[in-house]
Amino acid sequence: MTYCLAIALDEGLVFASDSRVHDSPDQVSTNSKMHCFGASGQRQLVLLCAGSLATTQAVVSRLQKDISHCAAVNLHTVDDLAAAADYLGEVYLQVQEQYDDSETASFILGGQIAGQRPAAMLIYPQGNHITTGIDTPYLQIGESKYGKPVLDRFLDLSTGLDHAARCAVISLDSTMRSNVSVGEPIEVLLYETDSLCLQHRVKLDAESGYLRELRRLWDMKLREGVQSLQPLPMQPLADIPENSGELPPG
Amino acid sequence: MTYCLAIALDEGLVFASDSRVHDSPDQVSTNSKMHCFGASGQRQLVLLCAGSLATTQAVVSRLQKDISHCAAVNLHTVDDLAAAADYLGEVYLQVQEQYDDSETASFILGGQIAGQRPAAMLIYPQGNHITTGIDTPYLQIGESKYGKPVLDRFLDLSTGLDHAARCAVISLDSTMRSNVSVGEPIEVLLYETDSLCLQHRVKLDAESGYLRELRRLWDMKLREGVQSLQPLPMQPLADIPENSGELPPG
Repeated sequence: MTYCLAIALDEGLVFASDSRVHDSPDQVSTNSKMHCFGASGQRQLVLLCAGSLATTQAVVSRLQKDISHCAAVNLHTVDDLAAAADYLGEVYLQVQEQYDDSETASFILGGQIAGQRPAAMLIYPQGNHITTGIDTPYLQIGESKYGKPVLDRFLDLSTGLDHAARCAVISLDSTMRSNVSVGEPIEVLLYETDSLCLQHRVKLDAESGYLRELRRLWDMKLREGVQSLQPLPMQPLADIPENSGELPPG
Repeated sequence: MTYCLAIALDEGLVFASDSRVHDSPDQVSTNSKMHCFGASGQRQLVLLCAGSLATTQAVVSRLQKDISHCAAVNLHTVDDLAAAADYLGEVYLQVQEQYDDSETASFILGGQIAGQRPAAMLIYPQGNHITTGIDTPYLQIGESKYGKPVLDRFLDLSTGLDHAARCAVISLDSTMRSNVSVGEPIEVLLYETDSLCLQHRVKLDAESGYLRELRRLWDMKLREGVQSLQPLPMQPLADIPENSGELPPG
């Protein structure tokens, strides 16, 4: 399994991914799921990959080759992010046809092309895509549910890049606690709107002091949160009709 | 969709369920998913249901009938919780055979029989079951992922009943935020070990002041939590080889 997410804010983009790869429970390895394709001052594109490693590596390899061989269409020539997503979808469909791998993959491609707005796109196995927007500032691929509540609570377009990055790490950490097939190192990459270059990244492994401290603090705050809640307004249940299977009205 | 959970602690049991039922996005209704079968001083059993409403209602109806008709095997005659779960599994298999409904269901049956330990059982469509234990103090059915992290963080056998009940409500609330097919009212029922009667319950609807206050406080604590974290130790990314698709080692 995998968990990757991209967040598109006014200030810029946050990309985050885990690095655990497993064929089966006894075949576990580590592999970056984050790939960068850019040209400073012109465009920056970041790709996040989930699903079959053979498929995602074949797609990444093809994207690199198309750039280095100056193919008519490649990530350095496409006019906009939607065209980039269409091109990626097309490459992905060709790889699926070539190898007939039953395990699917999914991709998030995000970034900015000079003169345009930054955004992120989620590309499906059918080759089509959806994008981030005002009401949907983030996209997820892989094991997305465990880490979604914290994103739903705190992210909107005006969230600061660093604040969003912390939410992303919490989201990944919650996922790792609940699904052992998602694991460190966590990679986080920040892109500032209109910078057209990639400036900041971090890779947090299992021994990371930051991650340990984040876990300790987050756990403490949540524990305080539960303790600060009033006890539930329980009502006596004296008159429950026995054996009826029905609870009396609340 | 549905989300129900049962928590088995030294102090007793917590049962919690949402109440939203939907056939399709334009057919949404409210239905309790919590059913009680008990005899004060002898045994208390609580059933939580997820999945096809036709199936779960048929199962509940059969359980009630078997009790009122004094069938040889019913929830008031079975020797222990494992036998109760086997009997429920058998009833469920019979209902599946009778109606051939492709939509499956799942059940949690928990409680205590005089002289035995309280516990909860999760019954699968195959009729078999798993139970709570020292390392697994809770069981979930339905939309289980969104609300799992908070349970993983805070529950163990020594957790107090009321504390666990608050965790259960937070777990349900996180799930309702992320999946609109899970909805109020939330029902929570507490069972105290060796009481052999059901004493406390609460039903929280969407207008519940308690739920509103819980949401406000929890949101505030989590927000404080994110703010209390140090900024991520980002590293400059000056030397990234352009177009390679590769990030430099962290």
